[in-house]
Amino acid sequence: MLGRLNHVAIAVPDLAAASAVYRDALGATLGEPQALPEHGVTVLFIDTGNTKIELLEPLGEGSPIAAFLEKNPAGGMHHICYEVDDIIAARDRLKASGARVLGDGNPRIGAHGKPVLFLHPKDFFGTLVELEQV
Amino acid sequence: MLGRLNHVAIAVPDLAAASAVYRDALGATLGEPQALPEHGVTVLFIDTGNTKIELLEPLGEGSPIAAFLEKNPAGGMHHICYEVDDIIAARDRLKASGARVLGDGNPRIGAHGKPVLFLHPKDFFGTLVELEQV
Repeated sequence: MLGRLNHVAIAVPDLAAASAVYRDALGATLGEPQALPEHGVTVLFIDTGNTKIELLEPLGEGSPIAAFLEKNPAGGMHHICYEVDDIIAARDRLKASGARVLGDGNPRIGAHGKPVLFLHPKDFFGTLVELEQV
Repeated sequence: MLGRLNHVAIAVPDLAAASAVYRDALGATLGEPQALPEHGVTVLFIDTGNTKIELLEPLGEGSPIAAFLEKNPAGGMHHICYEVDDIIAARDRLKASGARVLGDGNPRIGAHGKPVLFLHPKDFFGTLVELEQV
C-alpha cells in the first residue's frame, strides 16, 4: 500500500529567509512561493530529483501550522507525505489497524489538488503522516 | 549542490513496535534491523521506491538519539539526509555561508559506510540536516 515518499514538509516562520538559506547554503533549486489561503499556508517546493521538500509558512488566521510553530518557533519538520493508489482502501486498512484519521475521516482536497488524509501522530511514533492519492 | 533526498530518519523508542505499525497499518516493506553499536543505534530501512525511511532506536549508552527521545518520548522525525557529490566542497560552501557543521567539521564515516556531515539545526530552521557523499 505505501507508495513513494511524495514530500517532506518543513514549517518555517519566514519563508523568504528559509528559502534563501536553502538556495545559498545548500545550493537548492527553488520553486516559486504559492499562497494557498484556503489551506492557511504559503508553500514553496524544492525538487531534490527523487522527491520534494515543501517549505510551509503560515498564511492568515488559524493556519494549520500555527500551533506547531508556537511549540517550535524556529521551525522544524512538520509532516511526511506518502503516495497511495487508493486512499479509501488505505483509510479502511488504517482504521482496521486502529490508527486514527484526523478530521471527519474523509479525504479532502489537499494543497496539490489531490485527495489527502492526515493520520494521528500518536499512532505513528510522533510523526504526522499525510497520505495522498496519486 | 543539493542532491537527492537519501533518507528521512525517524527516531522511535521501540523499533519492533514501530516497524510493525509501518508494516501492518501502512503496508510498508521492511528491511532487516541492523545493530550499529559504533553509531549507538539500531536501524531499519523502509524503501519507498524513490527514497528511504530510516527508523532509528537507541543502542547502548550515549546514543546520539537519546537526548532527542528524552525531549520527544513518543519519537519523531529526527533528521533529513541529502546526497552531495563532493562533501568537502559542500562543507566549504556551507561554512562560507555561515552554517555550522557539527563535531570537528570533518566528515566521518556514517551508518551507511559513506562520508557524512551533520549541520546545526539552528541554521536550518529547526531541521537537523545530514549530508552524505555518494
